Amino acid sequence: MYDIKKWKHVFKLDPAKMINDEDLDKICMSETDAIIIGGTDNVTEDNVIQLMSRVRRYPLPLVLEISNLESTMPGFDFYFVPMVLNSPDVTYQNGILLEALKEYGHMMDFDEVIFQGYLVLNPDSKVAVKTQAQTNLETEDIEAYALMTDKVYRFPIMYIEYSGTFGDMEKVRAAKETLEEAHVFYGGGISSINDAKAAAEVADTIVVGNLVYEDVKQALKTVKIKEKS
Amino acid sequence: MYDIKKWKHVFKLDPAKMINDEDLDKICMSETDAIIIGGTDNVTEDNVIQLMSRVRRYPLPLVLEISNLESTMPGFDFYFVPMVLNSPDVTYQNGILLEALKEYGHMMDFDEVIFQGYLVLNPDSKVAVKTQAQTNLETEDIEAYALMTDKVYRFPIMYIEYSGTFGDMEKVRAAKETLEEAHVFYGGGISSINDAKAAAEVADTIVVGNLVYEDVKQALKTVKIKEKS
Repeated sequence: MYDIKKWKHVFKLDPAKMINDEDLDKICMSETDAIIIGGTDNVTEDNVIQLMSRVRRYPLPLVLEISNLESTMPGFDFYFVPMVLNSPDVTYQNGILLEALKEYGHMMDFDEVIFQGYLVLNPDSKVAVKTQAQTNLETEDIEAYALMTDKVYRFPIMYIEYSGTFGDMEKVRAAKETLEEAHVFYGGGISSINDAKAAAEVADTIVVGNLVYEDVKQALKTVKIKEKS
Repeated sequence: MYDIKKWKHVFKLDPAKMINDEDLDKICMSETDAIIIGGTDNVTEDNVIQLMSRVRRYPLPLVLEISNLESTMPGFDFYFVPMVLNSPDVTYQNGILLEALKEYGHMMDFDEVIFQGYLVLNPDSKVAVKTQAQTNLETEDIEAYALMTDKVYRFPIMYIEYSGTFGDMEKVRAAKETLEEAHVFYGGGISSINDAKAAAEVADTIVVGNLVYEDVKQALKTVKIKEKS
């Protein structure tokens, strides 16, 4: 069984975006710890199957970040379920999940399903608009969400998502320092090895997403953050 | 340390209601397993302190069910925090809690704080109106909420609340049979030993509340459900 707590670096691939075989090969043959398949818009059963079958040829852990029920399918090592704690709409906290439990709960393997205390912090991101996330958070709010993740819900992961912009590492640090158990994932705006290093100094795991599509060479370089450890 | 999982019967006392010393003595000297202090309306720091100090003379576990921050205080053995899973308003799922974590999180002892997957099922109850709880639930909804309590949030207790009316024991049974870990509390409309027996056959712990104020003799009789075990 793969140990998520050992992951330092992961790539997130968007099933709605195109990636050629050569780039995908480089990404999957890099020293990254895992691949997450996930996106916000136009995630369908069809494009998830396509991408999964291409990535499955490589011997590394494969995660599906659930974005909707239609595109959720067997065949992944883990399923990440974002519980958007700073959304005022219960739909994104546990409403979609409730529907999933009603329909598939009896056949779900909860050892593969990783619930995440998820904070959406870039107000301009699609996911922030969709979830109406309250992104204007002070350090004390971040700490309260970290306690909620750790002590109330006991989720194994807190995911800090700044999709589209490089985040405030002091906020990430506040979460990291408050958490006693949960592991911190950071994603958003990592566009160079320097960003990657800055994020990896604070978060347990960094997630490199858009850069794969914008500049695959730079994306591959971010894996170097692992060399220090 | 008290073991909540061994509790079969508890009395819930409302700090906003009057109870004379004689009746309180009988309640506290009965074979009940614990006293919960909690209510929906007019719960204040003052009336909670009053009632706590009166019950504290007796050597049995004392729980505060949190209804608002103003009336929350040290001195209890446990704090029950209802997370109303069938409320569409995040306020009652974790919003009030978030404020509490912001203000008091750094000094909370999480060993004393028991988070509960709470379902409010009597549409006419004050708590249902206040939380806008979606009470019209089918068995499959109850099962999904039970999975959410057990497998997603891993709360130790699922609390099924029918305040003011005796509930549908088949719904309680559906929860009980779905849960692998969490303990089922049932409260609502227990007005005789027969009701108490019916509820105790399905739930792990029954909560007798209003009956204390309506007919203390009948209330005391409900403790007899413990004799079987």
